[in-house]
Amino acid sequence: MKLYYSPTSPFVRKVLITAIELGLRERIEIVPVDISPVEPSDALNRTNPIGKIPTLVADDGTELYDSVVICEYLDSLQGGRLFPASGAARWQVLRQQALADGIMDAAVLARYETWLRPAELRWKEWADGQTSKIERGLDVLEGEVGGLAGLTIASIAVACSLGYLDLRLGHLGWRDRRPQLSSWLAEFAQRPSFVATRPPG
Amino acid sequence: MKLYYSPTSPFVRKVLITAIELGLRERIEIVPVDISPVEPSDALNRTNPIGKIPTLVADDGTELYDSVVICEYLDSLQGGRLFPASGAARWQVLRQQALADGIMDAAVLARYETWLRPAELRWKEWADGQTSKIERGLDVLEGEVGGLAGLTIASIAVACSLGYLDLRLGHLGWRDRRPQLSSWLAEFAQRPSFVATRPPG
Repeated sequence: MKLYYSPTSPFVRKVLITAIELGLRERIEIVPVDISPVEPSDALNRTNPIGKIPTLVADDGTELYDSVVICEYLDSLQGGRLFPASGAARWQVLRQQALADGIMDAAVLARYETWLRPAELRWKEWADGQTSKIERGLDVLEGEVGGLAGLTIASIAVACSLGYLDLRLGHLGWRDRRPQLSSWLAEFAQRPSFVATRPPG
Repeated sequence: MKLYYSPTSPFVRKVLITAIELGLRERIEIVPVDISPVEPSDALNRTNPIGKIPTLVADDGTELYDSVVICEYLDSLQGGRLFPASGAARWQVLRQQALADGIMDAAVLARYETWLRPAELRWKEWADGQTSKIERGLDVLEGEVGGLAGLTIASIAVACSLGYLDLRLGHLGWRDRRPQLSSWLAEFAQRPSFVATRPPG
């Protein structure tokens, strides 16, 4: 399999941690790309016209995106360990994954607004709106730490969202009012899969 | 069930068409909200901290988002008609749904850039970058129309993405170089579920 990759993308990290935890990492060839919404990659665009990473090409040539689809595909190769197959457990895990992905989406948009966009074109209300999504999402996660016990796609996604805040939005100080979530990440962060995918500082 | 709703959101339309096609529409109470990333709704935020629609509250109180999760949940209530359960068919449908959702995401961001954001803060390269994602996505769909035969979450998502382009980005003239996709939508658009969810003009 081939994975279009950047070392700082939280969505790519979600796929890589999933692959490591499932014992599939050795089957994946990394294809680094350096992209933003205003700096596309032709090679990536030929595989995923939306031009986002992660994008996976399976061994039979099947092209897969986005990260939600890729992670469930990888999980299916190993019999389904990270995605509950049905029932309340499935909807809880998928909703929590969507919450973590929503935090990552908002964090990436906040980062684009305050770093990629020319300084004279920045809109404070937009960046503040994205930050509010992040803060509210973290508050909900603080109350749901009990639901993150065990390794699922939800716990992987939450860990990646928090790791991205540490990388790019450290000034938010997300740990300050969230002791449960902070403790939870401290434990998750000891997993070799999290250590091995730590972004460059 | 309760669905946080706007008549112009393509992601809400995806959920509503799914509900209608599954015979579940009568079980869903609509809760209109008028939001943007800089104008949140407190009521919505208490259910979905990311503050996006669609958000569904199931009869047992389970909160569900985003549209991908809601649609699969609704499908599970009727035995799984729109999401293939496994195998190549599942990955094809989920990847095509992600492609259509990616077109919608890019279209919504392009709309925010050219309409919501104050005129003096607009960045042409950003809007152009989002438009390029849409154009490339449409080109891929033009070559994949054969894969959209039959009613699946992929065909529903593609129809909603094209409907949103007609609503908000008509100047792109997406039909001009895409006769297959244009014919495909003309047929899909006859479905009562598509007619009943047409956004106000």
